[in-house]
Amino acid sequence: MKIVALAGGVGGAKLADGLAQLSFGADLTVIVNTGDDFEHIGLKICPDLDTVFYTLAGVANPVTGWGRAEESWRALEIVETLGGPTWFRLGDLDLGLHLERSRRLRSGETLSQITSDFCCTLGIGAQILPMSDDVVPTRVYTNEGEMPFQEYFVHRQCHPVVSGFRFESVEDAQPAPGVLDALTKADLVIFCPSNPWVSLDPILAVPGIRDVLSSKGRIVAVSPIIGGKAVKGPAAKMYTELGIQPSALSVARHYADLLSGFIMDKIDAELHESIMDLGIETCLTNTLMTTQEDRYRLAEEVVEFGVM
Amino acid sequence: MKIVALAGGVGGAKLADGLAQLSFGADLTVIVNTGDDFEHIGLKICPDLDTVFYTLAGVANPVTGWGRAEESWRALEIVETLGGPTWFRLGDLDLGLHLERSRRLRSGETLSQITSDFCCTLGIGAQILPMSDDVVPTRVYTNEGEMPFQEYFVHRQCHPVVSGFRFESVEDAQPAPGVLDALTKADLVIFCPSNPWVSLDPILAVPGIRDVLSSKGRIVAVSPIIGGKAVKGPAAKMYTELGIQPSALSVARHYADLLSGFIMDKIDAELHESIMDLGIETCLTNTLMTTQEDRYRLAEEVVEFGVM
Repeated sequence: MKIVALAGGVGGAKLADGLAQLSFGADLTVIVNTGDDFEHIGLKICPDLDTVFYTLAGVANPVTGWGRAEESWRALEIVETLGGPTWFRLGDLDLGLHLERSRRLRSGETLSQITSDFCCTLGIGAQILPMSDDVVPTRVYTNEGEMPFQEYFVHRQCHPVVSGFRFESVEDAQPAPGVLDALTKADLVIFCPSNPWVSLDPILAVPGIRDVLSSKGRIVAVSPIIGGKAVKGPAAKMYTELGIQPSALSVARHYADLLSGFIMDKIDAELHESIMDLGIETCLTNTLMTTQEDRYRLAEEVVEFGVM
Repeated sequence: MKIVALAGGVGGAKLADGLAQLSFGADLTVIVNTGDDFEHIGLKICPDLDTVFYTLAGVANPVTGWGRAEESWRALEIVETLGGPTWFRLGDLDLGLHLERSRRLRSGETLSQITSDFCCTLGIGAQILPMSDDVVPTRVYTNEGEMPFQEYFVHRQCHPVVSGFRFESVEDAQPAPGVLDALTKADLVIFCPSNPWVSLDPILAVPGIRDVLSSKGRIVAVSPIIGGKAVKGPAAKMYTELGIQPSALSVARHYADLLSGFIMDKIDAELHESIMDLGIETCLTNTLMTTQEDRYRLAEEVVEFGVM
């Protein structure tokens, strides 16, 4: 069975990890948001790609959700001593990856080529694809003006009030090699529990991707909103600021034209019928992934439900 | 008293450190070779500048002579895991400095501005000046062709046989702000025990520097060759390959038109008269700097001899 997962940050990476470990050995491709990518102190940084990469390699930091386990911060301490920018936390191990990826990008290799090589090196069996090799930076419209995503997300810690998003140059972007092919051949497409606005919408905005998805029968989404709250990150805050009640129902509506099925937490059972009314099958389960076992269990449930 | 020291790598940094600690509190400017500087994995690296900087800041690695004490190598280990280049050893602490300097250079600041700020930050009292803010990369002519200095020095570990040197674009370079002024006002100029060919010649090749030096009365050099051998580095090997016997005498001849005095090791006493015949006063002492105390003692002797 061929599965394609669309993923952003931590929640997406956790479910992708569960899918990668499925006992029935599915052929997994993870298409990752690169709208968060940015240039920082001379390095190309791909936060979502790295979170997926580190999580599937088993080296992710279990506490922060981003970055690596057993990280150290010696280079950044020197940057701080010298008065440089430290708002984006770059650990020593993480820096090694950024340095090597940036070097290869400058030498003309593509992000997808490099990502593929890195996956081979770390023994990741799943195929991890950036949504595009082109640069499609997410810009956030806020009450303090338009700003780059990382400025909003990390530097300003999501404090500005959001009024919209823009995926710069997305109209000229191409899906990365393999993306459309994987989607076309997929038996099941899974929208991981990632932020709809800034993790999955950028992927869906890349020309060609939504077209392929529109013709597919089996697309399921896992709600990143549980009990009206985001497990992590600003998804719920964004919904509220955009004048939409943050809820699993709002997430289902977000993707309604594409979904065949929707996986939501039992805590949101009262929304079940409203989602069915959208013409979307629903699955109620425990969607919070706290332990490693949660990832596997949820992944199995999602796939079983999705291919029903 | 105003002292200017011309310095390259480890030997130069050690004497500069001694000069910086002089009990009579001289006003010290160290003009450092930047011919070794290069771009590597997206970072601007200034090996001689950093060796002087780390040494005067008291954080230099006492074993290697380059890099920092208590260094770690975690970023580089990841680069290695990912198949990237590791021939140039970049520690985590060192990387912090390279990242911040490279960032500021890209933002349009000059190497001399940045160096000055770094010195302030680390409480270095001496003024450290790069020889130029312009890029003047040393190229080495060898039996294996012409190559960049770091390719010869670090990557090829000085194995190619040297036939000459070229300081690329030096004719268009300007001395860094403060260099000519410091030299003009100096009561004493000291050529540190650095490689004549690739540490001090690049400095002397920057337009304007030799002119100022030619009009000065008090210039002394400390021989980097002791008993026909270089304390560290390829100076003696270079002399041999260029068909010149490596000796203190050869060093004195190298700078003969500029020097008023020459400090050489007691072990080379038999060369004393030949150097006097060049019209250069000589000082015989212990020039090997093994301990911190050696640096102070030699610095005092050099200054006392120089201003005689």
